[in-house]
Amino acid sequence: MERELTVAVVGATGAVGREMLKTLAERAFPATKVKAFASERSAGTRVPFGEDGTELVVEELREDSFKGIDLALFSAGGATSTKFAPLAVHAGCVVVDNSAAWRMDPRCPLVVPEVNPDALDNHNGIIANPNCSTIQMVVVLKPIYDMAGIKRIVVSTYQAVSGTGQKGIRELEKQVSDIFNMRETSPSVYPCQIAFNILPQIDIFMDNDYTKEEMKMVNETVKILADPNVRVTATCARVPVFYCHAEAVNVETDKKLAAREARAILAQAPGVRVLDNPREGIYPLPLECSGEDPVFVGRIRDDESIDNGLNLWIVADNVRKGAALNAVQIAEELVRKNLVHVKNRDVFID
Amino acid sequence: MERELTVAVVGATGAVGREMLKTLAERAFPATKVKAFASERSAGTRVPFGEDGTELVVEELREDSFKGIDLALFSAGGATSTKFAPLAVHAGCVVVDNSAAWRMDPRCPLVVPEVNPDALDNHNGIIANPNCSTIQMVVVLKPIYDMAGIKRIVVSTYQAVSGTGQKGIRELEKQVSDIFNMRETSPSVYPCQIAFNILPQIDIFMDNDYTKEEMKMVNETVKILADPNVRVTATCARVPVFYCHAEAVNVETDKKLAAREARAILAQAPGVRVLDNPREGIYPLPLECSGEDPVFVGRIRDDESIDNGLNLWIVADNVRKGAALNAVQIAEELVRKNLVHVKNRDVFID
Repeated sequence: MERELTVAVVGATGAVGREMLKTLAERAFPATKVKAFASERSAGTRVPFGEDGTELVVEELREDSFKGIDLALFSAGGATSTKFAPLAVHAGCVVVDNSAAWRMDPRCPLVVPEVNPDALDNHNGIIANPNCSTIQMVVVLKPIYDMAGIKRIVVSTYQAVSGTGQKGIRELEKQVSDIFNMRETSPSVYPCQIAFNILPQIDIFMDNDYTKEEMKMVNETVKILADPNVRVTATCARVPVFYCHAEAVNVETDKKLAAREARAILAQAPGVRVLDNPREGIYPLPLECSGEDPVFVGRIRDDESIDNGLNLWIVADNVRKGAALNAVQIAEELVRKNLVHVKNRDVFID
Repeated sequence: MERELTVAVVGATGAVGREMLKTLAERAFPATKVKAFASERSAGTRVPFGEDGTELVVEELREDSFKGIDLALFSAGGATSTKFAPLAVHAGCVVVDNSAAWRMDPRCPLVVPEVNPDALDNHNGIIANPNCSTIQMVVVLKPIYDMAGIKRIVVSTYQAVSGTGQKGIRELEKQVSDIFNMRETSPSVYPCQIAFNILPQIDIFMDNDYTKEEMKMVNETVKILADPNVRVTATCARVPVFYCHAEAVNVETDKKLAAREARAILAQAPGVRVLDNPREGIYPLPLECSGEDPVFVGRIRDDESIDNGLNLWIVADNVRKGAALNAVQIAEELVRKNLVHVKNRDVFID
């Protein structure tokens, strides 16, 4: 007999929050009740739940919101997660958090269900959902890591504006419309025009001159693969694309793994779809991967500049597998493993 | 006293050919006469030469067109160069060729004037202008190579549609306009929609599953640096940007070169402009580098994944420094070195 579960989505009016609700409905997540929370500003509005016209009334997120809630999916930014996730756990609610707030906290597992589901086993109430760019990369690299080991990764990203949420989508739309209607246009969300431009900055700069986004790819990859010997260097750029991040990934393995072997392994890998017949125009394209669940990989080829190298082209829907779907898959795994309970309600209360 | 020079631009109606004429005029290239050639289809049309309203009447390119011409800049595609460049040399005309036809021919120097001007000294009548993506990369890497040596380069490109010529520009314009006017749109120049998409294919595929564009970056870099020990691997992607290619370049040097040292060296390097104050939003952006002569570099940072590594973000106007300007600079160097003459008219006649 399934346990009765009350599930909440926190940040339900955002791009990822809406996709979380859609994904819970689509995948028939075993919830008895689903609640939607957002800031006071959005309270009282309605958000769709499922394709059948069902809507949820958005409630204001408050400190006492988590009473009676078993599982909460957070996607409301780092400040909200920092404040409210410990309160949720204190109320007995398990949190799957999509912000960066808890990802590198040693108390919190950082989970991609295809890659490290066992990291859930001893969770303390908060499970972190990795950064979108990291998720799609590790889904593809894990089978390669298992087969040949990974020494070093050099990744360059081509990231969609939906990674910035609905305001990023609106910014690109408005700028293109302005330009094609001979109107002046100016940036508001990004530091420069994103239409017909490439912005080599995602998130803020750190002391080492890398962006926070780039260091997420470095540090989260090591944490998820649980191997500090995996070295990563990243360049993250925003491109004028609405949905799906693309990544050019160069990987140096410990042991030789030929491109054809990698292709065969990836064809069997969970959550991966190989699109790799370039002469026929078969390779992953953001436009074609949008709205899809898998992580797509193609352009798999031997790197002829080193002995044990591969080049890969990885594309996934950043709002879906990069955020909402991965969070829902973590929730499903928690249910499957019977882990929707908080062992110690005070772990995150200072 | 300067010698009287008659100069021709072959392919004068194309995006690069027009830019060549503009650049010759802007830089007051010491030509007594400038002629414009194109295919029969364009003969009789006029193309601008300079900002003062001067126009040239386009002449049909014929086998006997090169009589009395001292120097010809070709940008009319590989087939035209393959056929007509040897005829030009046979008529005593020195050719600077922007196509890929002669680049890897051992009889032809492949020249970026800031990098390997001395390769011109023993030319045989045809000098090859490198691929746009290669030019901007080697302008920045040469000072690093001279200081610290280069072991390996991993490059991912973000290439503008103007790399495909005027038809690429029109294709992106039309698709965006179609989409924003709720019209169906379909690709004609590219194998898929380029608007709001990323296309991981530039040029055709080779036997090793790399594109010809990617292998140009590998092979031309080695030829220009004249060092077969420099290893290169590349992923080339087309992005919905009109002008300027951007490149995320990861370089492993032989000796340690810290980011701050690289920044100082590049600040003094010919043809390079450093834009690298990321916290103030100072880094190279395609929109801001369009129409500019230098190669711009920023995001210079130590690669923490290896002992001797750097990451760089390189942007240049692909039509200008990536093609027309570099060709005109080669022509200027030939004049300066008094090399506008053909020693043996039969080198390319089989």
